[in-house]
Amino acid sequence: MIAVDWGTSSFRAWRLDADGSVLDERTAPDGLLSSRGRFEDVLVRHLEGWSDAEVLLGGMVGSRNGWVEVPYVEAPAGVGALAAGLASVDVPRLPGRRVRIAPGVCQRGATPEVMRGEEVQIVGLLDALPDRDAHSVCLPGTHSKWVRVEHGRITSFRTAITGELYALLRTHSLLAALMPAMPDSDADDGAAFDAGVAAATRDPVPLASRLFGVRTRGLFGELPAAQAASYLSGLLVGDELHGWISAMPPQGEAVHLVGGTALTARYARGLQALGVASRVHPETLAARGLHRLALAS
Amino acid sequence: MIAVDWGTSSFRAWRLDADGSVLDERTAPDGLLSSRGRFEDVLVRHLEGWSDAEVLLGGMVGSRNGWVEVPYVEAPAGVGALAAGLASVDVPRLPGRRVRIAPGVCQRGATPEVMRGEEVQIVGLLDALPDRDAHSVCLPGTHSKWVRVEHGRITSFRTAITGELYALLRTHSLLAALMPAMPDSDADDGAAFDAGVAAATRDPVPLASRLFGVRTRGLFGELPAAQAASYLSGLLVGDELHGWISAMPPQGEAVHLVGGTALTARYARGLQALGVASRVHPETLAARGLHRLALAS
Repeated sequence: MIAVDWGTSSFRAWRLDADGSVLDERTAPDGLLSSRGRFEDVLVRHLEGWSDAEVLLGGMVGSRNGWVEVPYVEAPAGVGALAAGLASVDVPRLPGRRVRIAPGVCQRGATPEVMRGEEVQIVGLLDALPDRDAHSVCLPGTHSKWVRVEHGRITSFRTAITGELYALLRTHSLLAALMPAMPDSDADDGAAFDAGVAAATRDPVPLASRLFGVRTRGLFGELPAAQAASYLSGLLVGDELHGWISAMPPQGEAVHLVGGTALTARYARGLQALGVASRVHPETLAARGLHRLALAS
Repeated sequence: MIAVDWGTSSFRAWRLDADGSVLDERTAPDGLLSSRGRFEDVLVRHLEGWSDAEVLLGGMVGSRNGWVEVPYVEAPAGVGALAAGLASVDVPRLPGRRVRIAPGVCQRGATPEVMRGEEVQIVGLLDALPDRDAHSVCLPGTHSKWVRVEHGRITSFRTAITGELYALLRTHSLLAALMPAMPDSDADDGAAFDAGVAAATRDPVPLASRLFGVRTRGLFGELPAAQAASYLSGLLVGDELHGWISAMPPQGEAVHLVGGTALTARYARGLQALGVASRVHPETLAARGLHRLALAS
């Protein structure tokens, strides 16, 4: 089969064998934003030479701004409910093949929430999570997800817009003027990041006050400009981590981090500084998750 | 004498009698940004017809990016120390008159901080604060200040960049797309603001997670687009207020709010929702503060 993780800014396809092992992989910058109005074209082009009958797409491609809006499945949601929610897409240029899109997950109640794309990675992670326990999963990103998984089901989750706050402050704020120009060649100063994380526990004031430390510490010569972006990142990630550890004490032996290498490493470092163990998993779990959903449908 | 509050984006001058009562007032959009390189011109023009010998300027005009950089006075700082820190400016086109600029205040130690402009308003507020007590003062703004005043001196203070976060999220974020275009004709929906403030105590998760509620509550039909900006404002102001009330329990009978009418009303409303009394004071306290500093020098 062919598994595709199609998000807002990227397209990633895997050709999988019957066991779900990756035979081949293709990535392109053809996210939704640049594929609007020509989804079929983009898919057909990237699948050229791959003739498998089964094609399953996951991610924002199933959102209102995607190809076909696939209704959310309501949490708690496991493999069965998600597989039952797969929606077919009519693709005339791929005759005789079945193209489907995975649903997202929504949460109702006091804290309504939505995810789309992360649920497929979590399904891919399930093999690594003992079925009998509750687990805490964090998927860092522009909009991080904190997910509780119990007995193979997504039972509750929340979003944190930490990555977006970082980008806004790094680019458009008065603090941005204190930092070297992007890109963040300097955003990986470990000690400055750690100092930012530590402030979340050492300086229990509103985040909006801790953030001003980027300016004052710079002004008083305690924070070189080249370290300011890492310190800012530490302040934001530290607030997210400390806040979630307090609000939802981690279940299981470690927080499971799923995502790109640089970002998960940063979150793992922050969790360690706060005394919490973590296990890092690659975002290619999406391929495994889509395979499992296809099998279950 | 003539008192001038000269900030980044505005110029405000008062002609005062010997008791500090306002005889006349002039305001103009000639802040530092538009006056750079021609401070003397701007001042001379706005003082035309006012012949008083004593001219005292306060605000960012004394910063590195202002007319003359006036060194910070270190906290704890009272009227005497601030008056001793006034710096003279040579203004050839105002012969025989004394033009001076008030200093800002800095705080050293674990949480270095700076203010410039707010200290003049606080001096103006001192008459209203019984000398023997400790008081909590909040000056809301792009960068809010939370100040502790004891025995007529600024003893400690912190900044919160709440107003800047609001502007960034309102203008540049993914959440901004969910709100009607600026300006905020809709940002004064009291009930939506209150709901945002209430989330600070009812939903004890990181601010970055509460903020996502602007999207999810909209998606689930619980937050009309026209109320989203007010809800966002409530989330941010509520986090600042709740955080500061927890970190630094208010001293005295009420939190003293100093600033523009709309913003102080919003902060007073938020404090009330959190069970804390407040007293609102106008930002024209700057005139009174500059008068008191001139007398003390």
